[in-house]
Amino acid sequence: MTDDDTAVATTSKTAAEEGDVGVVRPQDFVCREPFTFDCGAEIPEFTLRYETYGQLNAAHTNAIFICHALSGDHHCAGRHAPEDRKPGWWDNIIGPGKPFDTRKYFVICANGLGGCRGSTGPSSPNPRTGRRYNLDFPALTIRDVVRAHARLVKHLGVESLAAVVGGSMGGMMALQWAIDFPEMVRGVISMATTARQSAQAIAFNAVGRSAIMQDPAWNQGDYEADKGPNVGLAVARMMAHITYLSNKSLDSKFGRAKRETGGNSGDAPGHFDVEFEVESYLQHQGQSFVNRFDANTYLYFTKALDRFDLHGPDGPLEDAFKPMTARALVVGFTSDWLFPKEQNQEIAQAMLRAGKRATYAEVTSDLGHDSFLLNSPDLYALLRAFLAAEKT
Amino acid sequence: MTDDDTAVATTSKTAAEEGDVGVVRPQDFVCREPFTFDCGAEIPEFTLRYETYGQLNAAHTNAIFICHALSGDHHCAGRHAPEDRKPGWWDNIIGPGKPFDTRKYFVICANGLGGCRGSTGPSSPNPRTGRRYNLDFPALTIRDVVRAHARLVKHLGVESLAAVVGGSMGGMMALQWAIDFPEMVRGVISMATTARQSAQAIAFNAVGRSAIMQDPAWNQGDYEADKGPNVGLAVARMMAHITYLSNKSLDSKFGRAKRETGGNSGDAPGHFDVEFEVESYLQHQGQSFVNRFDANTYLYFTKALDRFDLHGPDGPLEDAFKPMTARALVVGFTSDWLFPKEQNQEIAQAMLRAGKRATYAEVTSDLGHDSFLLNSPDLYALLRAFLAAEKT
Repeated sequence: MTDDDTAVATTSKTAAEEGDVGVVRPQDFVCREPFTFDCGAEIPEFTLRYETYGQLNAAHTNAIFICHALSGDHHCAGRHAPEDRKPGWWDNIIGPGKPFDTRKYFVICANGLGGCRGSTGPSSPNPRTGRRYNLDFPALTIRDVVRAHARLVKHLGVESLAAVVGGSMGGMMALQWAIDFPEMVRGVISMATTARQSAQAIAFNAVGRSAIMQDPAWNQGDYEADKGPNVGLAVARMMAHITYLSNKSLDSKFGRAKRETGGNSGDAPGHFDVEFEVESYLQHQGQSFVNRFDANTYLYFTKALDRFDLHGPDGPLEDAFKPMTARALVVGFTSDWLFPKEQNQEIAQAMLRAGKRATYAEVTSDLGHDSFLLNSPDLYALLRAFLAAEKT
Repeated sequence: MTDDDTAVATTSKTAAEEGDVGVVRPQDFVCREPFTFDCGAEIPEFTLRYETYGQLNAAHTNAIFICHALSGDHHCAGRHAPEDRKPGWWDNIIGPGKPFDTRKYFVICANGLGGCRGSTGPSSPNPRTGRRYNLDFPALTIRDVVRAHARLVKHLGVESLAAVVGGSMGGMMALQWAIDFPEMVRGVISMATTARQSAQAIAFNAVGRSAIMQDPAWNQGDYEADKGPNVGLAVARMMAHITYLSNKSLDSKFGRAKRETGGNSGDAPGHFDVEFEVESYLQHQGQSFVNRFDANTYLYFTKALDRFDLHGPDGPLEDAFKPMTARALVVGFTSDWLFPKEQNQEIAQAMLRAGKRATYAEVTSDLGHDSFLLNSPDLYALLRAFLAAEKT
């Protein structure tokens, strides 16, 4: 997902009856029970940082769990302080009167296990050594992230979620939730995602990992806070960022516009500095990312993405959805080329073949993969209608 | 363009009457006259390395000039020694009986000015200092490259080219040839190219340059041979390579196949080594590229690409083609997303609006941008027909 700037710029301010969740406070769920990863490794305890918006109802039936994307975190709505310039990353759909209406729903979002924004991950201290886990953190899967999330949800007293929702990597998690915890998920909304990473998506992640791992500061993953492979991470982020936007949105946003200052220096020999606006934008994206993200988490999360594959080694995709009991809404965006609409269609069709209550909805958008994060009345209407179809 | 491996694997071997040009010897054209760049800077002399195939006819009218793409060079047909594993990069279309039939045509190809494969570029010695130019090499444009090529063509006794041909960056050069040297170009064939770089194409190049320039070994461009920023250059190449292929071709070629060895190590903590075949393929592409390419040339060439813009600051695109007298064939490939077919259509339509003899032809291919390099009977038929329409 893109930097929050973009989301803010396009946040819907149209509906007069919509409000904001206001100032929110992140909380920590410290789980003192051991956690066993899919790979077999175990950690003795873990923390998940999370936020909630709205109130859990008396029957504990009105909760929505939000799964974040690769670079997202637990802070998806409201502000941590009134003066915060930017709200959470999905503030446009979460709040009073918004599609995920906090007057009605209790919305939960947590930084994923393996993350670097407050939840236990490679940059957290290993209780066995007192030093950062770094690469001693166990290999991670989407299933692991979801299993840890499920402990938090139960801890909050929620046995049944009205919906689990996510886009991109969050969409994979939402699907995995519905498959692995069918008794806990009444509705699933996955957007701009895939049932398995394509070769092209793996390829982009592989280049990003290569940029990080070949940065001398990576040091085989063994680095201290603030001394990580910032150069490699910025390159990885810049490249990935291109895949989140469409050719058309880049052309309409930047075209071939040049920066006002310094543009002419490019005519002199030996000047390869930033010349075009789109270059400047990407540089900014890369730099702001290294200030808030850990390179090892980037490796673990992209590897979890690349290994995600709901297709069985032999069986068809619909077999994966057999355990699911949730109603499902699968949304594809027309200009998304990272997880093209066909890959989202495939998910819904496999659910239907498995006899599930699934709908595929296609949203026309020029904004590429990041469409799911941006202002989209069409998307909002789909989300509202899907939630309204079930009484909580 | 991709590594030669790909081209070889798909070289047409079907037509029994087709032959190879055999063993060829590169030659050097040393131009002792000063060359002035578009930026105003001058170099006292330059060398272009080139190859020719076939014989110039008595009237000197049967020459075809081939323009190479970003990572190409002068060696586009035949072998330098009988035991060479791979022939030149466009060997599938150049030779006896092939679309560019060397029984009939005299085919010329030269490494571009600014290159690193024998022609004068940033890795060449600066005659004024005796040291490598590195970033003292003047800023470069596509027009500069073409103007240097024109000196070679005249040196070879050719005043009128039957055709100038190129794909990708070579397509830009071919268009520039027809515009800047109308009296020398009777036919132009541009493929898989654009009249100006899109924001997305600039963005990918910018990330590649960033990877190179942030590699400590780049050292502000001041490095010696074999001590360049190989890590950054490999990352740039790996990323760019993804843009040369289609999502579909990557899926059919690699899918989610894993490497036979080492794949299981990925389940252990801290293992982010190559796991999928597509990762291994990209690593190979990156490594083989650094063995044959100079990082500063990569900067100069990509910058020339990014600045290429035939659209006037005010006037429409057709104004650019007003000087052109050549017949034109513009070819787009359906799965090319780096220079999409629409961008090729745009070129042909602007030529037509300028009153020129232009044709747009679209070739259906799943192979992405690199389609122009690969075996394509549809493309071959177009090339043969275009050349046959004029008597030489």
